[in-house]
Amino acid sequence: MKKQHIINKLFALVVLAGVVTSCGSSENSKGALGSDVASQAYVTPGEHDDFYAFMSGGFSGQISVYGLPSGRLFRVIPVFSQDPEKGYGYNEETKPMLETSFGFVPWDDAHHPELSQTNGVPDGRWIFINGNNTPRIARIDLKTFETAEIIEIPNSGGNHSSPFTTENSEYIVAGTRFSVPFPQKDVAIDTYKENFKGTLSFISVAEDGDMDVAFQVLLPGYDYDLAHAGKGKSHGWMFFTSYNTEEEHTLLEVNASQRDKDYIAAINWKKAEEYMAQGKFKEMPASYVDNHYDESKQMAFSETRNTVKVLIPSECPGLVYFLPTPKSPHGVDVDPTGEFIVGNGKLSSDMSIHSFDKMIKAIEGEKFETTIDGIPILQYEEVLSGIVAQPGLGPLHTEFDGKGNAYTSFFISSEIVKWNLETKEVLDRVPAYYSIGHLMIPGGDSKKPWGKYVVALNKITKDRFLPTGPELTQSAQLYDISGEKMKLILDFPTIGEPHYAQGIAAELIAPNSLKYYKLEDNNHPHAMKSPNDSRIVRDGNVVRVYMGAIRSHFTVDNLEGIKVGDKVYFHVTNLEQDWDVPHGFSVMGANNAELLIMPGQTETLLWEPQREGVYPFYCTDFCSALHQEMQGYARVSAKGATTELKWSLDE
Amino acid sequence: MKKQHIINKLFALVVLAGVVTSCGSSENSKGALGSDVASQAYVTPGEHDDFYAFMSGGFSGQISVYGLPSGRLFRVIPVFSQDPEKGYGYNEETKPMLETSFGFVPWDDAHHPELSQTNGVPDGRWIFINGNNTPRIARIDLKTFETAEIIEIPNSGGNHSSPFTTENSEYIVAGTRFSVPFPQKDVAIDTYKENFKGTLSFISVAEDGDMDVAFQVLLPGYDYDLAHAGKGKSHGWMFFTSYNTEEEHTLLEVNASQRDKDYIAAINWKKAEEYMAQGKFKEMPASYVDNHYDESKQMAFSETRNTVKVLIPSECPGLVYFLPTPKSPHGVDVDPTGEFIVGNGKLSSDMSIHSFDKMIKAIEGEKFETTIDGIPILQYEEVLSGIVAQPGLGPLHTEFDGKGNAYTSFFISSEIVKWNLETKEVLDRVPAYYSIGHLMIPGGDSKKPWGKYVVALNKITKDRFLPTGPELTQSAQLYDISGEKMKLILDFPTIGEPHYAQGIAAELIAPNSLKYYKLEDNNHPHAMKSPNDSRIVRDGNVVRVYMGAIRSHFTVDNLEGIKVGDKVYFHVTNLEQDWDVPHGFSVMGANNAELLIMPGQTETLLWEPQREGVYPFYCTDFCSALHQEMQGYARVSAKGATTELKWSLDE
Repeated sequence: MKKQHIINKLFALVVLAGVVTSCGSSENSKGALGSDVASQAYVTPGEHDDFYAFMSGGFSGQISVYGLPSGRLFRVIPVFSQDPEKGYGYNEETKPMLETSFGFVPWDDAHHPELSQTNGVPDGRWIFINGNNTPRIARIDLKTFETAEIIEIPNSGGNHSSPFTTENSEYIVAGTRFSVPFPQKDVAIDTYKENFKGTLSFISVAEDGDMDVAFQVLLPGYDYDLAHAGKGKSHGWMFFTSYNTEEEHTLLEVNASQRDKDYIAAINWKKAEEYMAQGKFKEMPASYVDNHYDESKQMAFSETRNTVKVLIPSECPGLVYFLPTPKSPHGVDVDPTGEFIVGNGKLSSDMSIHSFDKMIKAIEGEKFETTIDGIPILQYEEVLSGIVAQPGLGPLHTEFDGKGNAYTSFFISSEIVKWNLETKEVLDRVPAYYSIGHLMIPGGDSKKPWGKYVVALNKITKDRFLPTGPELTQSAQLYDISGEKMKLILDFPTIGEPHYAQGIAAELIAPNSLKYYKLEDNNHPHAMKSPNDSRIVRDGNVVRVYMGAIRSHFTVDNLEGIKVGDKVYFHVTNLEQDWDVPHGFSVMGANNAELLIMPGQTETLLWEPQREGVYPFYCTDFCSALHQEMQGYARVSAKGATTELKWSLDE
Repeated sequence: MKKQHIINKLFALVVLAGVVTSCGSSENSKGALGSDVASQAYVTPGEHDDFYAFMSGGFSGQISVYGLPSGRLFRVIPVFSQDPEKGYGYNEETKPMLETSFGFVPWDDAHHPELSQTNGVPDGRWIFINGNNTPRIARIDLKTFETAEIIEIPNSGGNHSSPFTTENSEYIVAGTRFSVPFPQKDVAIDTYKENFKGTLSFISVAEDGDMDVAFQVLLPGYDYDLAHAGKGKSHGWMFFTSYNTEEEHTLLEVNASQRDKDYIAAINWKKAEEYMAQGKFKEMPASYVDNHYDESKQMAFSETRNTVKVLIPSECPGLVYFLPTPKSPHGVDVDPTGEFIVGNGKLSSDMSIHSFDKMIKAIEGEKFETTIDGIPILQYEEVLSGIVAQPGLGPLHTEFDGKGNAYTSFFISSEIVKWNLETKEVLDRVPAYYSIGHLMIPGGDSKKPWGKYVVALNKITKDRFLPTGPELTQSAQLYDISGEKMKLILDFPTIGEPHYAQGIAAELIAPNSLKYYKLEDNNHPHAMKSPNDSRIVRDGNVVRVYMGAIRSHFTVDNLEGIKVGDKVYFHVTNLEQDWDVPHGFSVMGANNAELLIMPGQTETLLWEPQREGVYPFYCTDFCSALHQEMQGYARVSAKGATTELKWSLDE
């Protein structure tokens, strides 16, 4: 054990050295490309990109939307974090979206955007993404590019292997990265092996998108890393990678890198549905929230749920099998045919590719090594399709072009390697600058990849762009894969960490994109339908200001009778009914900042004025030639003052 | 008056119609450009852009940093708003930066980035930007690209005409957009003409960058919009535009568009210095904050100031003059020679260009129309250099190429017009898609513009990019101006509103960019210098965890003895001393989110655990091949529990 410890320590050093070496190689790229590729990444002004790329913000907790091939950033969609570019998490309407069982969490870490699918192909309805730290899944509506729902995952600790989808988005999954006491309780950390368990959760997605925790499967206390659904013939199965099958709880860098093989867990979710129907679940207490944004009422609501249904593998034969896979596998990626299950063993020198057909045969033939907690471990040789021998160092993730090729990212050797799925032969390799994590081919984890491009999502930036002090942008690179050899065509910076991404043809989303909200459908309880509804209502120390915004004035622009100690709710309705005419609202000294209101929408700013005086407010979103004139004043009197409540416009 | 009201209303409609028409013309651009221009905007992977462009985030309150000509976003610098991509405004170290006299304001609206200058040329030391809503100015250090100081401006209401600089950044200025009661008090809004005043503030900038409110000049209750300093022969003067010289307080869209001419206020700040030296100021009580980020201690401190010095023009002859300028002028722009003072009268059909020489002559000859509050109004004809006749509709802002040409943005006719400063002749015009606000030429408001490009900072986006629901990205366009005719080469989206921008040659900033913080210079009171300093200290219910982060573990990764009700401060030091190796830190359920820590830096997360259990924490910034193993557990016991305080790594 002591010796192994040292070996692993050395390995870690080699790993680091690998990174450092790769970082020194930037000179190679300089001037390597001529202007002949410029036009491949260029989109003529007035024309549009071919693909949307949805990238996770990683530690920023958001999703960013890029065009390909231009690499231009079109929107940061606020999801798990407050966003002062939009008002999300600051206005009264969206605050409930960030509620959790721990209270308001203003910021989380989001890793894997996943487009909804129909028949195994991205359909452009929704995109899902996982919240890592306080385990959650969000669903974003791609008509509005707004977060529509966030559901918390109970019995989880780091929702990393999430939210991968089944062929028709019957389920998206959530596997815990960190095992935790099950159920959560105050126990000594060194009782890990005894008390800590992992759960793999299946979240059902209804026709209208509504998410629910359908069931959880209780597994040993490993770390569950990534997942992918079967497709075609393997539809009905979900595959999860695990590491730390050593079940260690400290210095995992060394201690969780002991074993030669960890497992891919194969879950037969069709079988799980049978067990659920038979009532073979355990209903357990759990506290978690489900937050919905109601588009009609234009506000979010947070609800608490109190139980969760858990399936125990030892009581549900045929539900789970383990496929031994070298070594601390990161991604598990299923090819478009559903036959090949690619294990990306990040500390392995080879890549192990499993065969779905062989797996079924091995299950039928009961080719088990042994059993853990009632889960059969299939014999490695019996499920293996073949090996990609020494393709590179530190494989992390594989996607597919739909023409029989796989593209794998290698973090340590910092490259993308193209190889043939049938022959396992390496066909091409290109360097990535620097230290690629995931990669993305549009539709590259679906049954019908669009192919054409692969995007390297890199972890280290260093000298790729003009420097910006100690904190640098994150970085992506775009390669053309339409030919036999991959060709680098663009470096582009990304906001947040481009941890993972998904791409989809623009025509599946652009035509359905909503231009503005219809005022007639605005059922916000404090909405205005016309300027005539302008008014101010006092109820005790709560003052509600019903205010319209229309080029180029607020429908109440002078107001008096507010007092120190009041809670003033500005309910501002943008009365415009035209494309791209937002208005903003801001009042001096507000501790709750600003509003940014789209046409037809109502938003609410809470102002608690602190001092007597006359305070200006104004439109913060340049709306018209007379935007600069779009202002007003709010008079604040002392707590006991008798100033009459009044409001006016041009009187 | 009634008739004028109707005329103005009609004008407003025409203005809006103009916008709408312009929005319909997108087809013109489609396919108009071939791939020959692609290479002009393309930066080969591994090579660098030529210019930094610093763009305001507008309503987002931040600054975004782009490269030109590629239009790529390299960094959002958090300034007046919290930023979940960085931790600014969430971690304990930076929260004080967002303190104001109204308390913590998490979000403001920032308009005009302004580079520091030496001898009238941007020098790359700092960039300043104004906070509009809660009036403030920020200074960003361009070694680190971090906000170094934010100072609040007293007696102001909407700090819009700010923070324009003098030739050597002796001062940057802050003119109030909204006049407010002076001093602030509870008065009826319709006493506007009697009680409301405007202030123009001069903020001194010390050799080390430290800002102070040196003095304010008290002016009539107009709206002060933009400003620019004199240069060369006009060095020593500062020019501010005003509108609403009608002194109206409601429906300004109509009521502040009555008069044919408003004023440019010319302030002789050298003269102001004489008056200050003579003690001719009024010291007034005022409450405002000055927040510094201490780079050595790696944390921000907020201090309150209590007085401000005010100069009254009627008591200071020669301090202020008004130059009549048609009509509601937006920008006031001084050409590189210092002779031409361009008034961009946004509701005027012509542009009035004033002459500095004529202004001085008119002052000497006392060519005054009349006097307001002791301020002489110079005769329009006596200061006018000439008129640019009917150049377009809705001029907003002008910059210069250093070759005798001016470039003016026209919002309503949505175009950039190039004209000759001497002859006032229009030389070229190009459309902007859509409704351009400000424009920017690198160095274009300085004595030595780099020229080469002009960037259109547009207010309406509509169909320029792939749609993203009702909320669209903002938009900029890049034109080559190296030839006689302007040429559109790139459309690029921007984050936040690109309200105004400044550009500077990359070589003035890139070589000075700090790569990481030196651990030995880290004087944070809770810093660690080596892993050996790891420890946990309890003092009552305050628990301080001194934790290092180094590839690929935390130097304390198992901790016990924390109790519900504790205030746990995680002081995490990134022990790396290499370029681009950040670490993150996040603990499950924390209401204060995450940390993102640059090499050599210490940051603090406050965690108030709510429930018993064992909670994972992990690194949120992908740092190494074994990043996924960089995790630990914190055990939380009940309030009265006797669990011993202990911590460990690999024990």
